[in-house]
Amino acid sequence: MMQFHVRSEMSYRVLKPSTIILNIHALRTSNQTILSETFQVKPSIRCEEFQSVSGENRFVRLDTGKAKELLVSYNATVQTHPTIISRKDMEAVPISQLNQSVIPYLFPSRYCQSDRVGRLAWKIFGDLSHPYQKVVAISDWIFENVEYLRGFTNSETSAYDTITQRAGVCRDFAHLGITLCRALTIPARYFSGYASHLEPPDFHACFEAYIGNRWFIFDPTRLAPLNGLVKIAAGRDAADASVASLFGWVQGGDIQVSCKPAVSGFKPWTHRQSTQRGLSLDG
Amino acid sequence: MMQFHVRSEMSYRVLKPSTIILNIHALRTSNQTILSETFQVKPSIRCEEFQSVSGENRFVRLDTGKAKELLVSYNATVQTHPTIISRKDMEAVPISQLNQSVIPYLFPSRYCQSDRVGRLAWKIFGDLSHPYQKVVAISDWIFENVEYLRGFTNSETSAYDTITQRAGVCRDFAHLGITLCRALTIPARYFSGYASHLEPPDFHACFEAYIGNRWFIFDPTRLAPLNGLVKIAAGRDAADASVASLFGWVQGGDIQVSCKPAVSGFKPWTHRQSTQRGLSLDG
Amino acid sequence: MMQFHVRSEMSYRVLKPSTIILNIHALRTSNQTILSETFQVKPSIRCEEFQSVSGENRFVRLDTGKAKELLVSYNATVQTHPTIISRKDMEAVPISQLNQSVIPYLFPSRYCQSDRVGRLAWKIFGDLSHPYQKVVAISDWIFENVEYLRGFTNSETSAYDTITQRAGVCRDFAHLGITLCRALTIPARYFSGYASHLEPPDFHACFEAYIGNRWFIFDPTRLAPLNGLVKIAAGRDAADASVASLFGWVQGGDIQVSCKPAVSGFKPWTHRQSTQRGLSLDG
Amino acid sequence: MMQFHVRSEMSYRVLKPSTIILNIHALRTSNQTILSETFQVKPSIRCEEFQSVSGENRFVRLDTGKAKELLVSYNATVQTHPTIISRKDMEAVPISQLNQSVIPYLFPSRYCQSDRVGRLAWKIFGDLSHPYQKVVAISDWIFENVEYLRGFTNSETSAYDTITQRAGVCRDFAHLGITLCRALTIPARYFSGYASHLEPPDFHACFEAYIGNRWFIFDPTRLAPLNGLVKIAAGRDAADASVASLFGWVQGGDIQVSCKPAVSGFKPWTHRQSTQRGLSLDG
Repeated sequence: MMQFHVRSEMSYRVLKPSTIILNIHALRTSNQTILSETFQVKPSIRCEEFQSVSGENRFVRLDTGKAKELLVSYNATVQTHPTIISRKDMEAVPISQLNQSVIPYLFPSRYCQSDRVGRLAWKIFGDLSHPYQKVVAISDWIFENVEYLRGFTNSETSAYDTITQRAGVCRDFAHLGITLCRALTIPARYFSGYASHLEPPDFHACFEAYIGNRWFIFDPTRLAPLNGLVKIAAGRDAADASVASLFGWVQGGDIQVSCKPAVSGFKPWTHRQSTQRGLSLDG
Repeated sequence: MMQFHVRSEMSYRVLKPSTIILNIHALRTSNQTILSETFQVKPSIRCEEFQSVSGENRFVRLDTGKAKELLVSYNATVQTHPTIISRKDMEAVPISQLNQSVIPYLFPSRYCQSDRVGRLAWKIFGDLSHPYQKVVAISDWIFENVEYLRGFTNSETSAYDTITQRAGVCRDFAHLGITLCRALTIPARYFSGYASHLEPPDFHACFEAYIGNRWFIFDPTRLAPLNGLVKIAAGRDAADASVASLFGWVQGGDIQVSCKPAVSGFKPWTHRQSTQRGLSLDG
Repeated sequence: MMQFHVRSEMSYRVLKPSTIILNIHALRTSNQTILSETFQVKPSIRCEEFQSVSGENRFVRLDTGKAKELLVSYNATVQTHPTIISRKDMEAVPISQLNQSVIPYLFPSRYCQSDRVGRLAWKIFGDLSHPYQKVVAISDWIFENVEYLRGFTNSETSAYDTITQRAGVCRDFAHLGITLCRALTIPARYFSGYASHLEPPDFHACFEAYIGNRWFIFDPTRLAPLNGLVKIAAGRDAADASVASLFGWVQGGDIQVSCKPAVSGFKPWTHRQSTQRGLSLDG
Repeated sequence: MMQFHVRSEMSYRVLKPSTIILNIHALRTSNQTILSETFQVKPSIRCEEFQSVSGENRFVRLDTGKAKELLVSYNATVQTHPTIISRKDMEAVPISQLNQSVIPYLFPSRYCQSDRVGRLAWKIFGDLSHPYQKVVAISDWIFENVEYLRGFTNSETSAYDTITQRAGVCRDFAHLGITLCRALTIPARYFSGYASHLEPPDFHACFEAYIGNRWFIFDPTRLAPLNGLVKIAAGRDAADASVASLFGWVQGGDIQVSCKPAVSGFKPWTHRQSTQRGLSLDG
């Protein structure tokens, strides 16, 4: 069991009355408890929280009204108690017996064109027999072949580009992981969260793969320990789990994010520890 | 109120034990009642029906086992009683008040990269004030600018291509309609269905746009009367509402589809009738 | 007859011995005379000038050797005496009689995928009968539909993107013009040059279309008067006429460019003047 | 020294007076002598032969006039006397000393977006030191990783797709080879030719890489022996060396191609023989 203080602050300049949809609240799952949280917008405007149909996001919709400058801040203390499963206890479930609710995560999505990379995925990873082995190999392959590079990609970049261009940020790494998994008929989805020990601090993106009967987290960037994550959202890809969606005429300003262990004694997993067993925050 | 006999038959050649997910059953909505239906697979194999989380699909999962040849047939008599709303009774609802459940249909998806066509969409349709007017204009623009042409596109073709290449089939027309709507912040989704008067008979694809507080159907191909549709599924795009998804090693054979009025006196709407009022099968 | 002082200065930081190929010299054509020019690299390194096979570029190849910092400067006084032809004197030459040497400029190239935009081009411009009319209409359409916006595109952006994304810089405008011309079977190529009255001063890109028996210049950005251009190069697209190609490990620094009338009395053409008659620097 | 009878026949249906540009004649180089040739079009129409500026194509332009059906046939007896150079005699020439005329073959082109695959190419092939070794490794990699599959790709497919989609025909294999070479700053170009022992008989595409001071042929499909090739054209990519370019309204019909040794005793090279030494038809 771990405990983290998470915080995010963002400012907006509003040029015309607009709507902003934020997705920055820590999620409530059976593996993640929110001990306390505050969400504040200055000046005070109309805000409304809601969950997506799938229940894997907590959105807040802000109606800017006539406000010109907005300052949004979110603070929470979150307890995570991930399920940890050793490699040998994970089953390989065939599609014919797969939990029905995860089937949509086999389909391609905006940034994850799994329908176009099948041959490549089978060529590189097809000989591995167990899905967990495959996902570990995918995650390693991305780490080894894609360069972490800020400013190279943008919000339109998709896995189909990253697989050739070989550079990007956490979002691009996650999209590529998802795409390769789906191409091998392993359900996979985007994970958005707060991450302890991430330098520089920022929102983080990883991916979840469905193995046996559970979603496990993988981080092909290796930039943050898996046991230091606090989940914000899951979705098909970044289109579903964007930190902020702006409708109208708004300019985003600075973003400050932090995620710190709330109690002493937190021991971040090494990469090696992460590959011997799976970690799930999905409940 | 209309009534239709719908039927589809498809055959598969199974080369290795595989899983097939079909999405060919007529949907149950408050605007569509299934009076009777039969679903048969020969030889008899394990089949399982389930709905997607969003409730907008009825999937059947088939586990081929050792069967080598499959013959699937679906027959139904379906009553549709669409909601019909005249143009002047449709409100324009701002995003700040939009039904939360439809917000995901504002986001880009695999075949509908609405994030990349914003300038174009605003340039062409931005001056129109009412969302219904915009969607009618989008649908007309597609009809006038995109050529209906079999064999030009394939299952990887997306709206980003069709907007320039200007040729495709109903699926491509629908994807382009969805994309342009979302770019204008009008929620839109893929509609898959049976269609009376479609020549040659086949599954049909249209799109739904959310105007006021309801999903309305638009058919930019103008190949079938709106009041002759029977809904199978709705989804982000064809990735969510594919007629058949094959996992394993299976070859699809012939497909036979039909949709016929079950009672005399059915009067297909003309295109003109379709633009004066909206038709919804969504309940 | 016009006369211009042109100047460009660029600096490079060399991290490993590298080769730089520059394309910044004013071209010698029967419509453009170089009255004087100096080209200097500090420190002094091995430089070699050569022309491309087509004769439409003057390249300089620099072998950095062990130099760590390079300062390149080019100065020239150039007299241009463009051929000016009134609209009514331009013939429409069918492909069967087209000068053979221009046929390669009908084919698609890296940034100008004319093979993919045929339907769109014929739909928008197909009804115009004379090629000059078509090219003027293309140039106007680009001006009206594409936003001049720095930082939106990069060196990988091609006309296939710009036609939908509708934003870019002079290079993107030129690529789109070339692409639409070729799709209509009008030979077209990239023009790189110095431009008087361009704000802020920079290298400029336009395009040339082959009408009758001559290459005419078009500038869909309308940012510089056509009679204030000094030609550096022509090519299939920017891949052929890049200002600098770097091989090795070199970082480009600041670029300073200027182009000023060398004698008093230069009267920049208005846009209107540019559409009544064609201007050619091709000889 | 080898000798081949080559033949091609193609038919066209002309719906409106059109222009056809063919590129099917065997090229004359210092390594390839045309002993005899006939070119015939029925009915007799206006034809005109010309070479591209680069001299690496022999085009024929046909003006269909009012002809409705065209039958084109080309027959030639060609002697090839390739230059063969053993691996150890090939120098690695740095860009700073590269023959100027080949520099354009370092730049990206329509189907060879070498500017987008640099990281991937360096990652896979960067450790090899000699350019010949690199090109052999590229050719082997393509053979091993891309499936030869008819009907998967079309005339718009480019190397950027093939590198991920991993399937295609000789044209796609050649484009990918060119792209990877250029990304490693090895000049490379498209080779179009007749090929002995190709099954089924057809036009063939390979690629040439410039090593030392000469163009060498590589065939990543391994479908034809290198010493059984008769060169038709070289170009940046298929856009420059297309068998037929149609302008107007013409439909292509059947194509018959053959290439047979004209004297007994021709011994096709094995793949192994092809990798020990380079073969050049470029003179």
